[in-house]
Amino acid sequence: MEIDTSPGAITRVPGFRAAAVACGLKQNGQADLALVVCDCPANAAAAFTSNAFRAAPVLYDQELLARCHCANLRAIVANAGNANACTGEQGMRDAGRTARLAESLLNLPRDSAFVMSTGIIGHPMPMAKLEAGLRAACGGLSPTGGADAARAIMTTDLVPKEASASFPVGRATVTLGGMAKGSGMIAPNLVVPAHPGAGRGHATMLSALVTDADVSTDALHAALGRAVAASFNCITVDGDTSTNDTVVLLASGGAGNTRINVGSGAYPVFEAALVEVCTSLARQIARDGEGATRLVEMVIQGAASDAEALQAAKVVATSPLVKTAIFGADPNWGRVLAAIGRSGSAVNPAQTALWLGDIQLVAGGEPLHFDLEAARATLKQPEVRFTARLGVGSGQATVWTCDLSYKYVEINAEYHT
Amino acid sequence: MEIDTSPGAITRVPGFRAAAVACGLKQNGQADLALVVCDCPANAAAAFTSNAFRAAPVLYDQELLARCHCANLRAIVANAGNANACTGEQGMRDAGRTARLAESLLNLPRDSAFVMSTGIIGHPMPMAKLEAGLRAACGGLSPTGGADAARAIMTTDLVPKEASASFPVGRATVTLGGMAKGSGMIAPNLVVPAHPGAGRGHATMLSALVTDADVSTDALHAALGRAVAASFNCITVDGDTSTNDTVVLLASGGAGNTRINVGSGAYPVFEAALVEVCTSLARQIARDGEGATRLVEMVIQGAASDAEALQAAKVVATSPLVKTAIFGADPNWGRVLAAIGRSGSAVNPAQTALWLGDIQLVAGGEPLHFDLEAARATLKQPEVRFTARLGVGSGQATVWTCDLSYKYVEINAEYHT
Repeated sequence: MEIDTSPGAITRVPGFRAAAVACGLKQNGQADLALVVCDCPANAAAAFTSNAFRAAPVLYDQELLARCHCANLRAIVANAGNANACTGEQGMRDAGRTARLAESLLNLPRDSAFVMSTGIIGHPMPMAKLEAGLRAACGGLSPTGGADAARAIMTTDLVPKEASASFPVGRATVTLGGMAKGSGMIAPNLVVPAHPGAGRGHATMLSALVTDADVSTDALHAALGRAVAASFNCITVDGDTSTNDTVVLLASGGAGNTRINVGSGAYPVFEAALVEVCTSLARQIARDGEGATRLVEMVIQGAASDAEALQAAKVVATSPLVKTAIFGADPNWGRVLAAIGRSGSAVNPAQTALWLGDIQLVAGGEPLHFDLEAARATLKQPEVRFTARLGVGSGQATVWTCDLSYKYVEINAEYHT
Repeated sequence: MEIDTSPGAITRVPGFRAAAVACGLKQNGQADLALVVCDCPANAAAAFTSNAFRAAPVLYDQELLARCHCANLRAIVANAGNANACTGEQGMRDAGRTARLAESLLNLPRDSAFVMSTGIIGHPMPMAKLEAGLRAACGGLSPTGGADAARAIMTTDLVPKEASASFPVGRATVTLGGMAKGSGMIAPNLVVPAHPGAGRGHATMLSALVTDADVSTDALHAALGRAVAASFNCITVDGDTSTNDTVVLLASGGAGNTRINVGSGAYPVFEAALVEVCTSLARQIARDGEGATRLVEMVIQGAASDAEALQAAKVVATSPLVKTAIFGADPNWGRVLAAIGRSGSAVNPAQTALWLGDIQLVAGGEPLHFDLEAARATLKQPEVRFTARLGVGSGQATVWTCDLSYKYVEINAEYHT
């Protein structure tokens, strides 16, 4: 399936409008409030951080979904610059006021608007600014506003993240579009509420996904669970799972296809499209990790289970020693094996194998002679892949991360509260 | 108990001699081989990394302890510059040859010498250099060689780590002395073999501990388990548990005290001394973490259990966002709570409290107004302490770490294999 990552993904989906405004939450004066609105009531599914300190907008959205039974949703209000996290009772009131104001300004029924926030933790939301911004955004909704919305939710992101796909469902053509943000505090461990089969993994990352397909809420939840497990929950920049990670998926039904249920013939097609769009967004986040100079793909095979493979891959992908070696283009592969060895995943050292790109470094647990200059050159490419086989079973997983550079330290040490 | 951290700790213990030589394992030509020898057969206990890729010297020492029943030990050969890890069968032969050569040169019985290694992973040990060095070291043993030995095991360490204490046991005075190394790949998760009550935690850290006290092997194992759990397993620099972490404790009995058994009245005194010496060494390692500008103490209280408190403290202590904020002296406390919240330890957000030094930042889950300049000044001190109360139970733990600086990236990215 062809994934279009050009600007404006959200509003390539017919029936969705978006707007972005600068309301003063970002100190640099750039756009910091995005609004996405569906022209008709949409079914919804969402996934939220598993951090114990879930931010007020996360708690608000979770309660909202329970109240509205995942149906009749119309809007997403997303701000950057303030996370409304660790803000106590005031934070909960502010999240609710934001939703109420959006619903009121847009003449929508109560309980039809999601809220999402990203930014500094522990500071009360400047509600006067946010409310003024929301009024302006409601007046600026546009069927071509997607690209601006994707920029408005950026924090330390250098580039917006967007992806969309169109595909046939029966005689209808449906479109799926998404935007995401995330660069630091990235290690999503998202859970789709009340759907225990959903994957887990670790960021503030925010993502809004919209489609004009007609999809049942059960099918939306099932597909989002699979997509999140295979994408956002497989990326890490710093291992720091955020208090605010949120993914919201809205399906308007405007395309007029026969409704997709979990057992429908079209379900696998929809799920596959959602997996691909989310994977594109997730890789865009890892590539734009704070200070990143390279996208790193860590593949683990031969683990006792897929879960153990994922665990091992995440430990390698968060190892400061591995990430700095990659920044330095140093093929110090012992750091990769040491990280796997501390992951808690079962390993058969004598059956372990390791590759850097196509260069095999270790076979049967024994170090191989390899071309050091070729290995260094491989590490200097914009995308670096390590593949490790643990020699235990058939479990496998792929995790995307980035290297750890001086710039990472600068971004996070010279950021002042 | 007074802990003496001045140079020469190991050889302040009567009956122990030490030597250090440069044999070419370190590229900079500094001393890289240390030898510690006891004048009489000693009882022993040891703790080893839980990394699945245990290095050859770790595997060798574990087998040695089983063969010799933790008795009649005489020597420790420790090298820096090459870890002899992930070196396959050749590595195992090299570890054994090293022990045999030491025993032969010193006229000791077979199975009386430990080996320890730290350095690059995956390179075969340059045995010709090591053997020449070992010959020189055997000729250079001295009752004042402790300080040189402590320097010889350093890798990226900027300073040697030494600690000793003397205390009465009955009418005898006993001395306990230790040296340690460790700066990167520090997150010891040491296990005392066959003593399941022993603590776990995560480095290459190496430590040699020696005493002239007469202590049974059972009492040595019990005391080392407690000491390691409270010290080395409570430090982290980078979260990267090494393949080589090793702590060896030798007790010669030369002091002539009544033998200390687990039930002896003197046992708690011995255990307390060992805990204090190990804690001093562990803090010295954290303070000298790669690129460190500050020692950071993370205290967790009110957790469901001590184990959950330790888990939460370690997650905070390895969070790149927390560590860079401390380097930048930025009181961005939301990063601390976010790290606690992702740790998997139970938390009651509405009952959470947080202090930076003596400055309370959060009470009852609500952010407090605090003096930003005072907080910044507190973060600029050489020792920084955060205390978090999770509001769940009475579990507590303290973990020592350091900040994450530009220098950390330099050390690990510009290190070339």
